[in-house]
Amino acid sequence: MARFMDVHRGMQGITADQLMEAHKADLAIENEEGVHFEHAWADPESGLVYCLSEAPSPEAVQRIHERTGHRADEIHPMPLSV
Amino acid sequence: MARFMDVHRGMQGITADQLMEAHKADLAIENEEGVHFEHAWADPESGLVYCLSEAPSPEAVQRIHERTGHRADEIHPMPLSV
Repeated sequence: MARFMDVHRGMQGITADQLMEAHKADLAIENEEGVHFEHAWADPESGLVYCLSEAPSPEAVQRIHERTGHRADEIHPMPLSV
Repeated sequence: MARFMDVHRGMQGITADQLMEAHKADLAIENEEGVHFEHAWADPESGLVYCLSEAPSPEAVQRIHERTGHRADEIHPMPLSV
């Protein structure tokens, strides 16, 4: 398992409810790929969304995000953290 | 207080010790600007570092990062989180 930060762009206008619904949709199927989405942060003005996850691979993260309708624009491994 | 995600680029080769030292340097003076750095994540291969903070403004975040020698390339407010 590794940690990943993924980035979604173009989400201008996202609401707290929409972020929660998207996160819940990911959580509902994440175990099918061995992924766990830990947190997500969003800025409705810039349209940026960041998601922090633990997963076996970036492809596993992307498969969950694609199935729930919000493909990530970037997925970065984050092997170091404090 | 608001939450911010800041991004540092070009940190290729950063080690766990260097990330910890940079984070400790920020923590040592953060209260002078009313900032709290909650977490940081780094990828030595891509050179990306993300820092999550609570702060009164993006300028306050940048002032701490500048004084500790690692100016952020981007600082994004993150008003929504799950």
